[in-house]
Parts: sequence; structure tokens; C-alpha cells
Amino acid sequence: MFVCENIAVGADGRLSFAGQSVRALAEEYGTPLYLMDEDRIRHNCRVYLDAFRRCFRTGSMPLYASKANSFRRIYQIMAEEGMGVDVVSAGEIYTAAQAGFDMANAYFHGNNKTPEDIAFSMEQGVGWIVIDCAGELEAVEAEAARRGIRQKALLRITPGIDPHTYEAVATGRVDSKFGTPIETGQAEALLIQTLQCPHIELTGFHCHVGSQVFGEDVFERTAEVMLRFMAEMRSRHGYTAQQLDLGGGYGVRYVDTDPALDIGAKIERVASTLKALCASLDYPEPLMLMEPGRSIVADAGMTVYRVGSVRKIPGFKNYISVDGGMTDNPRFALYGSRYSVLLEASPAEKGETAWDVVGRCCESGDILQPNVNLPEPNCGDLLAICTTGAYNYSMASNYNRIPRPPIVMLHGSQSSLAVKRETLEDLIRLDV
Amino acid sequence: MFVCENIAVGADGRLSFAGQSVRALAEEYGTPLYLMDEDRIRHNCRVYLDAFRRCFRTGSMPLYASKANSFRRIYQIMAEEGMGVDVVSAGEIYTAAQAGFDMANAYFHGNNKTPEDIAFSMEQGVGWIVIDCAGELEAVEAEAARRGIRQKALLRITPGIDPHTYEAVATGRVDSKFGTPIETGQAEALLIQTLQCPHIELTGFHCHVGSQVFGEDVFERTAEVMLRFMAEMRSRHGYTAQQLDLGGGYGVRYVDTDPALDIGAKIERVASTLKALCASLDYPEPLMLMEPGRSIVADAGMTVYRVGSVRKIPGFKNYISVDGGMTDNPRFALYGSRYSVLLEASPAEKGETAWDVVGRCCESGDILQPNVNLPEPNCGDLLAICTTGAYNYSMASNYNRIPRPPIVMLHGSQSSLAVKRETLEDLIRLDV
Repeated sequence: MFVCENIAVGADGRLSFAGQSVRALAEEYGTPLYLMDEDRIRHNCRVYLDAFRRCFRTGSMPLYASKANSFRRIYQIMAEEGMGVDVVSAGEIYTAAQAGFDMANAYFHGNNKTPEDIAFSMEQGVGWIVIDCAGELEAVEAEAARRGIRQKALLRITPGIDPHTYEAVATGRVDSKFGTPIETGQAEALLIQTLQCPHIELTGFHCHVGSQVFGEDVFERTAEVMLRFMAEMRSRHGYTAQQLDLGGGYGVRYVDTDPALDIGAKIERVASTLKALCASLDYPEPLMLMEPGRSIVADAGMTVYRVGSVRKIPGFKNYISVDGGMTDNPRFALYGSRYSVLLEASPAEKGETAWDVVGRCCESGDILQPNVNLPEPNCGDLLAICTTGAYNYSMASNYNRIPRPPIVMLHGSQSSLAVKRETLEDLIRLDV
Repeated sequence: MFVCENIAVGADGRLSFAGQSVRALAEEYGTPLYLMDEDRIRHNCRVYLDAFRRCFRTGSMPLYASKANSFRRIYQIMAEEGMGVDVVSAGEIYTAAQAGFDMANAYFHGNNKTPEDIAFSMEQGVGWIVIDCAGELEAVEAEAARRGIRQKALLRITPGIDPHTYEAVATGRVDSKFGTPIETGQAEALLIQTLQCPHIELTGFHCHVGSQVFGEDVFERTAEVMLRFMAEMRSRHGYTAQQLDLGGGYGVRYVDTDPALDIGAKIERVASTLKALCASLDYPEPLMLMEPGRSIVADAGMTVYRVGSVRKIPGFKNYISVDGGMTDNPRFALYGSRYSVLLEASPAEKGETAWDVVGRCCESGDILQPNVNLPEPNCGDLLAICTTGAYNYSMASNYNRIPRPPIVMLHGSQSSLAVKRETLEDLIRLDV
């Protein structure tokens, strides 16, 4: 009935999330409020971990793409579950390190790693640097030489596959800002250059065709392109890759009409494609990596708002304004992303009226979700937006000088703060 | 030659901004870096202040729409110049109050002011609350009654004018999330209800047709709709408004092809339309308010980045990646906004090659400006994006856990920090 099984109607007829009363949580922690279902996060990790154990060689590992939602506590959960992490900045490296995450299991990504960030990643003992292009290779080699270390690395290769997802999250095409393309010969040149770097231990290749992928065989096609490239590089340059990182990320169900993917079964299909290819190419089966972010945390999240103004403009439009908005969830403003919206008091009712659910920012584009059928709420009622665990807190701003909401983790019947609510004092802390 | 006269080629052939060397500033304060030309901010204020003095009754006042860029120092500059301010949240009220701004000259806006924010605005002595709708009227009356005060207020009315600007910043149409429409009769009902509230002193009306307005007569048409409404309300309900707030905001020149508006002359035309209308309707000329935000600060801003990777994908696309991105300027990602881009080392050269200037976020949509003709830079060169004084810092996020840049104010030959650079420690300060 709801987009994820952790959403339910409680015994009181009201909304429950992760088995807890949303109303009670809003009263305890205030609104707007990010809720994260820790049990669901762990469940999502285990879908990948179990499939990896069943399907891939020992030493293969799913990496949590922590840009989806990065705060101290999440890295501790990843460590406890045995996940690796993908980090994209000194800020994520610092947060993971401060959480006690073993940085040997971290992979450092990015189309433009600054020299400071490369140095910081080595200082913090980040396991792998995923080298994006020739210029970066030189910077990594130089910094590793300076430190007298041999830095493990993957090369990010662009396989030239368009996963037919929304343009802004499609990154496997040849004309991407990320990675080095096979098609132009630049990937091969980068490999040759890397093999000449004495301070880089190249363990394999990375690719990423896009986020929110539902297409039947995108990862299988990607694996095929990559393996054929790898086999060609072996025959031309004698280099055999030990690792292959297929990047992110399986699609997540935001609304009823999105399919619910069986990720375990999908990984099994990728694995059998891979094994068949390796056999036919006589290539040793590589250790596999994938980088789920959204599919680990999105459906573990819910944002709870309090309804402010409810206005009907007869013959035109109807608005429900809530006490958050594009500041805590810019995804509709950025991508037109769809979400499921529920009233806390009557989550099972659809209502006859279509509403635009909008935020409190002084900006017309501050829409959380347009055209949602809901019963008419009262000012002061609670409203929930589902599946907000990915790319909400991590993309939040202080636009309109609005403090960012806290993150509350739910586990069993317990709840605890993972990120505190910003205060007015916090907003001016850096103002001179 | 450049989009604003504060941009120039220095004696050394390199980029200068507000008469200072961009290179020297980047070396002193690091990159990415927001520069703000304080003299230009003051100049822009004076364009409005002078026109107001020339054209409107004494007591009329331009209000700086501080959501465009809100930090302590900016409110001090507004106070020194004699501007009022428009604030949209407790956070902006708090920042202005901490800056020592006289809150009697502040107008509090928003489509969904929370009860806490309404109480906070009265506690801080905010001069006016701009009441958006009937529900909010009740909340303001109740809070003022509780405090035993009479709160000055304007009513925000939707005149039903589409300024033909980009949809997300057009707010004068009947179907807006803001204000109460004339066309549906709801504005009249709201007025009747307000006049019955003993704790509200209604001084007039507010409207806002949109931001980045270039259209020849938008404000004149708006003034006409509003004055005819006001005259009708006087004849039907005996209420004469003392104030009329026409909202924001004249268009700003982002690229060569945008016109350079003579705002003083525009205001003169609005004033003469207004005077003629008042005469023909026998309506006493109201005290006028306008709410420039973008046109006060946009062209006073420049963002300076350091170039990281420079990559050409032959036959496909060319990328310049810089050390900032949608985290410090999400406007291209949100609206497809145009900007002028310059290389610090050769600001006058156009170059044959078209580049996508992209940020360092792990996201394909992290584009600062596509398709810009520039000479080929080297890794480590400085690149400037012009006219970033509005809706950049105020919309900045920590996406990818990237710290926000500092704001440095330039005045004469001096520079000083107005907002400090965020540190890695700052990023996890609220993490439990």
C-alpha cells in the first residue's frame, strides 16, 4: 500500500514509520524532522552484502556512496555491517575518520580532487584513490612519491553507456565530466601512463553509468564493455585487473508507479553475465565493487513537516505550505523528482483535491511536490514525505537563513539524535 | 566590455575587481572565494534611495530583500545607507538584529510564517508583518493580543500579473503560493477581516510580481492594478491605505546580451504613472516601498575558483573543473541561469574552444556554466564567475560535504572577511 514496508498505519489509524508513531517523534524532536530507519539501512546493506557473498569472489565488497547522506553515525553503521565506503571530498573523509571508520576500506572519488584533498586522503590512510583523468594521475603520483608510499588506485573509465535516466544523473556517456573515455583512446593512454608510475599500485578499473537505474540490463552491458576493454588491455599491455567497480546505483521506489527491484536477483544476473564473459575471454574473475548510495538510505528516510497555511484559490490552484521546503529537500526544484506524500493523521486516505505541497521559502520554485491528492489538512497537522533518506540532508542549505533539521535514527522501539538541529546562533557563527 | 563596470583588466593585464587584484585576493583568502564590492553595494542602494527621494513622498523607503544575501555585515551597510530590509525568517531577523539593525525598519515576509517566527518577530520589534493569507492574519492577531501590542502590518495581495519571467521566480500570478488574490474576491475578504482585528494596524498593501524583471511596464501595470483595487476598497469599506509596497525586483545584467537598466529612470516612470493614477482616482499618494535584493548585491559579487582538471574529449565535449560548484552556486542547476565567466590571467580573451565549466561535486548536474568560450587554462589557474552577489552564498549547501567559501568585502583598496570559511570541524559540529 505504501512505497516501502517500513511505512504503515498504526493501531490509532495514524502514520507509523519503522514501527514508531510519527506524531510522538515530531512532538519529541520538533519539525521539520528527518527520520532515518536504522533497521532498514542495515537491511538494505545486507541485500548487497548477501548477494556479494553468494555471487562474487571473496574480497568483493559493496561500498556505500556516502554523498547520498553523510554524517558520523552512518559511517559507524557501515563499519558494523562490513560495508566499504565511497567518499568524494576531504569533508566526507574527515567525517568517516572521525566516526572511527577504517579508512583502508574507503575509495576516494571525484572529477576534480584538489591537491589538498589528495594529500589529506593519503594522510588519513584512504585505501584507494579512484583516478579520474591524466592530470589527476600526475598529482597522485607526485604526492605519493613525496610521502614515499605506493598508493592503491583504480582508474575511472567512461564506458560510453547512456542508462536512459534523467540527464543530470547520467554519467557513463562519453561526454561526461567524469572519467576517461574508452572510445577516444584516452582510457588506454591513461592506463599506459599509470603503469609507468612507481608510486601507484593500480588494482583495477571503475565505471559509473548513472544513478537511479531501472533498466533491465544496464549493469550487464556495462560489465561487458568493461571486461572487453580489460581483456584488450591485457593482450596489448600485459595488465590484468584484479578489481572491477561497477559504480552505482539501482533505482529506488519513490512513488507507486516505480517498480520495486529485487536487487539480490539483479546482482545474481550481473554475476552470471560476468562469469560467462570471464570464461569466454579467459579472464580471471575480478573482485567486484559496487557503490550503492540511494538504494541503501533513500527508503530508510522520511521527512516530517508541520502544515502552516492551507490555501485554496478557487478555479486556480490549492496550496499546502509546510515548515520546511527546498532548503531541506531541493530535489523537486532541481530535478522535478517525484515523492509520495502522506498526512500523518490519515495516511491511508487519498482525498479528492489536488494540492501543491510547497515550502516556506520566499521563492515560487520552492515546491516539494506538485499535484498531490490529499484530504484537506488543518494548520498545525503533520505531513510526511517518504523516501527522503538520500540527497536530502546532504543537499540541504540555509537558504532564507532557515536552520537545517536534525536527523533522528530509529532502531527497534528507540530513537536517538544523529545530527542536532541547527540553531539561530549556528547560522551566524562564521559571520564576522 | 564586461558585464559590470567594477570588472576590469588591471595594469598587469590580469583580472581586477573593485579595483583590486583578484589574484592577490585569492592568494590571501584561498579559493573558492566570494568577493563582494562594498562600494558597488552602496552605489546600488543610492540609485534606489536617490530615485525614491526625487520621486516619492517623504517616508517612502526601498527595502533590501535580504534573502538575496544575508549575513551580519550586509545589514550594517543597509543601516548606514538608510535602507529598510525585508526579512523572511527568524534566521534573517536574528542576523539583522545581531548586526544592530533597527528592526523598526524591517518588514517580515513569507507564505508560511511559523507561530514561533511570528512571536520572535514581535519580540525583536520587527516594524511590519506582511500578512500573506487569512490563516496567518489570525495567528498575528492572536500573538499581538497575547502581548498587548498593536502590530503594524501590510496585506500581501496577488495582482494577477505574469511578468513573463522564468516560472520559478514569477509570483504575481493568481495561482501563486504567495499572497491573496484580488480576482477571486479573497483579497477583499481578507481586508474586511483585518479591519476587524483590534491588535493589527493595517498601513497598506504589498504585492510582488516577480524577480529579475526587465519588462517595460511591469511595475506600472502592477501599480495600476493595486491602486484601482485600493480605490475600490476605499469606496466599499472606507479604508485608505497609507503605504504601497511594489515588491522586487528589477533585472540584473548577468551576460552581455542582458540589457543594462536605468533603474532611476524606471522608478521615475513608475512614480509618474502613480501620480497620474492617484490624481484620476482622487486617492492620496501612498508612501512607496520596493524590495530590491538582486539589483542591490548581484553585480557587487564575484566568485573566484581555482581550475583543477582541464579535459578535452575529442569530438564530444570539453570540461574545465573548478574547486567549487553547485554547492556555492546552484543557480545553473536550479534555473539554467546564465553567467559571465572569465579567466583571471587573460580576462579580455575569448578563446576558440567552448567549455563546460563544471564543479567538483560527484554529480553530472554540477555545472556552473555550459558552453563558454575561453582560452585553454592550465590546472591551477584562477577562474572568475561574475555577478554572483545574489542567491549564491544564501543558497549554498554542504553537498558532498564541501565547506562553504568565505565572503570577503572590498572597500577602496581594503579587503576584510565578512563571513569566515567553513572548516572540516564545522561540518561535523552538529553530528552526535
